[in-house]
Amino acid sequence: MSREMRGTASACSNIALIKYWGKADPADNIPLNGSVSMTLSDAITTTTVVWDPSLSQDEIYLDGERILDHRGLRISRFLDRIRADWYRMHARVASMNSFPAGTGIASSASGFAALATAAFAAFGEGLPEQTELTRWARRGSGSGCRSIHGGFVEWIGGTDDASSFSRQLCPADHWDLRDLVVLVSSAPKAISSSEGHRIAGRHPFMAARQAELPLCMLATKGAIASRDFGTLGAIVEHEALEVQGIMMSGQPCALYMQPATLALLHAVRSWREDDGLPVYFTLDAGPNVHILCEGRDAPAVRERIEALVPGLAILENRPGSPVRVHDAHLL
Amino acid sequence: MSREMRGTASACSNIALIKYWGKADPADNIPLNGSVSMTLSDAITTTTVVWDPSLSQDEIYLDGERILDHRGLRISRFLDRIRADWYRMHARVASMNSFPAGTGIASSASGFAALATAAFAAFGEGLPEQTELTRWARRGSGSGCRSIHGGFVEWIGGTDDASSFSRQLCPADHWDLRDLVVLVSSAPKAISSSEGHRIAGRHPFMAARQAELPLCMLATKGAIASRDFGTLGAIVEHEALEVQGIMMSGQPCALYMQPATLALLHAVRSWREDDGLPVYFTLDAGPNVHILCEGRDAPAVRERIEALVPGLAILENRPGSPVRVHDAHLL
Repeated sequence: MSREMRGTASACSNIALIKYWGKADPADNIPLNGSVSMTLSDAITTTTVVWDPSLSQDEIYLDGERILDHRGLRISRFLDRIRADWYRMHARVASMNSFPAGTGIASSASGFAALATAAFAAFGEGLPEQTELTRWARRGSGSGCRSIHGGFVEWIGGTDDASSFSRQLCPADHWDLRDLVVLVSSAPKAISSSEGHRIAGRHPFMAARQAELPLCMLATKGAIASRDFGTLGAIVEHEALEVQGIMMSGQPCALYMQPATLALLHAVRSWREDDGLPVYFTLDAGPNVHILCEGRDAPAVRERIEALVPGLAILENRPGSPVRVHDAHLL
Repeated sequence: MSREMRGTASACSNIALIKYWGKADPADNIPLNGSVSMTLSDAITTTTVVWDPSLSQDEIYLDGERILDHRGLRISRFLDRIRADWYRMHARVASMNSFPAGTGIASSASGFAALATAAFAAFGEGLPEQTELTRWARRGSGSGCRSIHGGFVEWIGGTDDASSFSRQLCPADHWDLRDLVVLVSSAPKAISSSEGHRIAGRHPFMAARQAELPLCMLATKGAIASRDFGTLGAIVEHEALEVQGIMMSGQPCALYMQPATLALLHAVRSWREDDGLPVYFTLDAGPNVHILCEGRDAPAVRERIEALVPGLAILENRPGSPVRVHDAHLL
């Protein structure tokens, strides 16, 4: 090769405060609604892409292991879209997560944000403009769209590939919010995210949810802008339980919560309502609990979590950084 | 007194297979939708009413204790309606449950079915016609309407006091179905049933639920008539989770499930899906789990429950009897 087509990027995962659940168009991951997230400082995926004309197929490594299953296929299909627009060659891809595999933390968001960025960086011709980069990440994994930006992020749902992208609401240093992720279970999900999106899309409650969301989005963005934790927390808990309620009454039923999930939910409400500790929860498509508080309360909240569920790991996050390109290549 | 105006009746509680949740008219307990239940053989309330012209107010005893709080007031207000139509005198009322107090089993259904029946029996002029008696019980407690009949019962929701009553679908000996109630918690509910009905009534998902229910009711009645446990169980689980989903995403949020509730729900699904044991669950407005199976599987189901949650009491029910008048007076 005349020049080395190698690029590496790191991206943070994110936790949705208003959820992405249900797709208007599965091919391009156009969501049924916009969403809002906080980028997670300590859940990072680093990905190196080497475009190599000598390869007859992509070679993909996740956490050091060659991947030949559906996960590899999903990555290759995503690379196909980039290749179609740019150079038609295969790639060697290596990706590592800062958090242990199988913890149930969504790695597809950080994964596709890092992959898209590394793939373009490897071409060595400059990155796409940032909004365009969020579109690229979204084509790989919907929520990946939000992981391009740091801090607090809005995914403008849009109606098609051109109008669906993310933008930053506030940078990471706007608000010292913490997300203490309690790792309840690392068992594989009984219902995949893709199946979950399909269940949501045909759920009879979805129309009523969509009708409520525009106002809810405005209130969420207002609460973030004014650092109004009580307002944000109340919205976020309701949102989490609404989505869980929809999923568990879907066909088929997706009952993501486990006993320890519920123990934490009840505890968080009691810490807040009985003890006056400003703490709220949210949930993702899984049993882990994301416990939200402000920085000054994080030590007390961590202590209570450790006392309640002593065996469970906690991953503490601040508002994270935007995706970044660097030279600590994995390949 | 020229003659003793004393009457005693016993009524079984019931478990809703299709739920009563949300009222069209709170004054007469006219529900938003019809419902279907199984009467529970082993959750019985016995109530004695003595109409006594010498009393200046009602005297009410529950499980041997004089009641002066809102529970007594609710009973007196119900007696006011009967008094308005019949003799205007006060009553001495005593009521006992076959199940320990505070187990979280709904005692208001069996309680008001027994109370209405005992109150009329005490007049000594014959009971109202049975359908009319279901209306009386419903005025006291909506679900009490279903506890007048034995076996499998439909509450025809109706639109007003005249059109809202229950009827028997099949008698108790139609089907040896069992309801093993696992008593997860006896703590008082954070959200009362009345508040729960209000939350449901204004919930944005309720319209979609109401639109689905007529077909769901037909399928439920068909499954009971043909003793099709697989069909009934699937409907009943979905129904239970739908109502829990609505309640937990309501304003305020009613999160009735506890960790042990969820442990049992996941276990029941695994016993069925992984081990082929025909067993389903339903839930009420509380953390207890009602585990449904056919008689031949009850010993195996009980054994599994005891192994999973060794400390928790189980109340096993068959399809129960209709309300009955008898002479084992409590007063």
